[in-house]
Amino acid sequence: MPQLRTPKGTFDLNPQETLTTESIISKTRKIFEIHDGVPITTPTFELREILMNKYGDDTKLIYDLEDQGGDICSLRYDLTVPFSRYLCSNNIRKMRRYQIANVFRRDNPSIKTGRRREFIQADFDICGNSLPMVYDAEILKMIYDILRSFELPYPIKIKVNDKRILIGLLGLSGIPVELRQTICSTIDKVEKLSKTEFEEELRMKGLDDVKIENINKFIIGNKGTNEYVMSKLKEMDDEEIKRGVLDMETLFKYLKIYNVTDVVFDLSLARGLDYYTGLIIEAIYEGSEVGSVAGGGRYDNLCDSLSEGKLKTPCVGFSIGVTRIFALTQLKNIEYDVFIGSGYGLNLEDRMMMLTQAWSMGLKSETFSGKRVNYQEQLEYAVENGFKVAIFTGDNEISNGVYFAVDLKTREKIQFEREKLGEFLSVTFNLK
Amino acid sequence: MPQLRTPKGTFDLNPQETLTTESIISKTRKIFEIHDGVPITTPTFELREILMNKYGDDTKLIYDLEDQGGDICSLRYDLTVPFSRYLCSNNIRKMRRYQIANVFRRDNPSIKTGRRREFIQADFDICGNSLPMVYDAEILKMIYDILRSFELPYPIKIKVNDKRILIGLLGLSGIPVELRQTICSTIDKVEKLSKTEFEEELRMKGLDDVKIENINKFIIGNKGTNEYVMSKLKEMDDEEIKRGVLDMETLFKYLKIYNVTDVVFDLSLARGLDYYTGLIIEAIYEGSEVGSVAGGGRYDNLCDSLSEGKLKTPCVGFSIGVTRIFALTQLKNIEYDVFIGSGYGLNLEDRMMMLTQAWSMGLKSETFSGKRVNYQEQLEYAVENGFKVAIFTGDNEISNGVYFAVDLKTREKIQFEREKLGEFLSVTFNLK
Repeated sequence: MPQLRTPKGTFDLNPQETLTTESIISKTRKIFEIHDGVPITTPTFELREILMNKYGDDTKLIYDLEDQGGDICSLRYDLTVPFSRYLCSNNIRKMRRYQIANVFRRDNPSIKTGRRREFIQADFDICGNSLPMVYDAEILKMIYDILRSFELPYPIKIKVNDKRILIGLLGLSGIPVELRQTICSTIDKVEKLSKTEFEEELRMKGLDDVKIENINKFIIGNKGTNEYVMSKLKEMDDEEIKRGVLDMETLFKYLKIYNVTDVVFDLSLARGLDYYTGLIIEAIYEGSEVGSVAGGGRYDNLCDSLSEGKLKTPCVGFSIGVTRIFALTQLKNIEYDVFIGSGYGLNLEDRMMMLTQAWSMGLKSETFSGKRVNYQEQLEYAVENGFKVAIFTGDNEISNGVYFAVDLKTREKIQFEREKLGEFLSVTFNLK
Repeated sequence: MPQLRTPKGTFDLNPQETLTTESIISKTRKIFEIHDGVPITTPTFELREILMNKYGDDTKLIYDLEDQGGDICSLRYDLTVPFSRYLCSNNIRKMRRYQIANVFRRDNPSIKTGRRREFIQADFDICGNSLPMVYDAEILKMIYDILRSFELPYPIKIKVNDKRILIGLLGLSGIPVELRQTICSTIDKVEKLSKTEFEEELRMKGLDDVKIENINKFIIGNKGTNEYVMSKLKEMDDEEIKRGVLDMETLFKYLKIYNVTDVVFDLSLARGLDYYTGLIIEAIYEGSEVGSVAGGGRYDNLCDSLSEGKLKTPCVGFSIGVTRIFALTQLKNIEYDVFIGSGYGLNLEDRMMMLTQAWSMGLKSETFSGKRVNYQEQLEYAVENGFKVAIFTGDNEISNGVYFAVDLKTREKIQFEREKLGEFLSVTFNLK
């Protein structure tokens, strides 16, 4: 017998879990839409070479399809690289697109943190030129509004940094150019590692005590209010850092107009991905067990490098971790409208006729489809399964043309004329 | 440079195409819901051994994942086998479930017929015991209502048959038991092949002229009204056929109650899949270029055989071919609400404030994010992109507090007080 389970790290969602996931998607999508996003669809797998050299060390987590002849493909790892490929394929320089879809990573699954091998991302990205930080601020506004829309009992914290500032600080710390990207990967893990582990990893990557001391001073230990961090950075003698700080000041000015609070300038925010070029973002629900629930940033060169210079267009965007937010969300209940039963006799065809009418009104309706069941059992089934009203036919009812319904909230019995079933349901129970 | 295209047989959908697909899904889903369906989610890939020996000759079309250590997996080929696996995994004997998701087949793609290697199926299945043909009739009612809901300019034709009748007729035709399944596959193709090709394939599978003549007489040529076909079958001396005809009569009685017309009893309908045991269904839009747009049937033994006898539960269900219906559907237009421009001066921050307000009202809104653009250009952009209203700020407007809006349908200019922006949009333009 085959093992009747899902593959490691993947899960079924039952109806309640599916509906809950869909309600998270629907709230997210609502915000995508009011920001004039339009949806695209890309295939579940891409040509493998398109996904290569985009995800740093994590390239090893990509799922490959077997070579069965024809194109060599891999399952998508995120929605950002497929979006950039889409822009290049169609030569598009300006777009506000969203995509909500499954992505695949051969990572170590963990139920506690909500990490799965197949999970849903909801991505919004703006491609095109703008005055500095206009789109960047809008992206943060969206993350903030989306995370608030779930009404979860955790404070939101959105960390921001700028890749140029981070690279500049690594320069001031004496880190050679060729090591800066990989050192970013270590800095990205600073909150997960102990101080000793962190410094050990830096040492393994070739840094001496002075450089480690510099990283601690300039980056890790450089904490305070947003204003304090900016004022410290302004003292530094580096062109890229100066440009970055200027943009950060503009960003915080716009965020104020947009009523966005809870954004924290955190110099130790690094993010592992290679392709970011400016703003980087990570959001968490403080005190929750899951990791980051949104992440993103600016990636102005990805199209350029994918197309080898044929399409240059700046992009900024973010991804909502739907599956992680799901792990924090209470399950939705399932509700139906009309249960059609029989008080005395089988009367299947009469029940079918009423069903036809209820369906034609768009009401969620069913009847029992087996042999006669007891009145009390039918009532219990209807209550347990979240129906609003139960209607009962019977031999007497059919000859009189007068039926009764049970309001399943109050258990009140109400009579109605069979002829006026539609009117009765819409007026008495407000079902329409 | 990597090739910047999608893998063979797969396609991107642009925003209009994605929204059109979603509107097909949404109409389908509405009917799934009023029939009390609940959604489940299963992984995109399954353990490979679960998918083996389910799809007859078409097993070769399954996409395999590379063995990168761990479970041996393949992309799902349909949603029926994963549903049965879900029932077995969770020991469920009664459920009305739907699932709308991508499936994958390494088939020959064709733009004309809408055949793709990754495409969307929308499946509804009822598992559980019922009086004969109650669920079968409901399934047909649903297919009929769904196909009508798209309001396409083609007549609907739903062909039905019964696997027991078909197998019985093959028996009467003298076809040995072990050949009956594979002969079904050939019969399934009768409309695509010429008479000579059809008979040649039967001969290749080992049938002599007498048997081929019998198949033509009992199955292919046995056409007429539903009543005629049933009366002919009643004359035949075979227990399985008798049982099948009795069920068919019940089915047509229920379909009449459900107001379902356009269902044709077609003895040559065979369907290639191994797992059907009773009713089989295929629906087309007559005169359209795409093939079948819905298919399904009864499969009472699939859970039993998957679980090797641990879970016995009858199932009947169908699949809507969303991607094929898409090929027949007119593209949806994209619409937005409010464009916020500037008549004189840049006034970015004032526009951002108005944006914040429009977003908070849930209106689909944007402004231009670059350097100053000409008034006329802004107006044209707003009209071309389907906005309902354009609002303009300006240096004078900011000092007076009186702004103007353009109704983009009528081009009428309307003044309003900045203080009352929200009220103005909701009252004058019915935006809320």
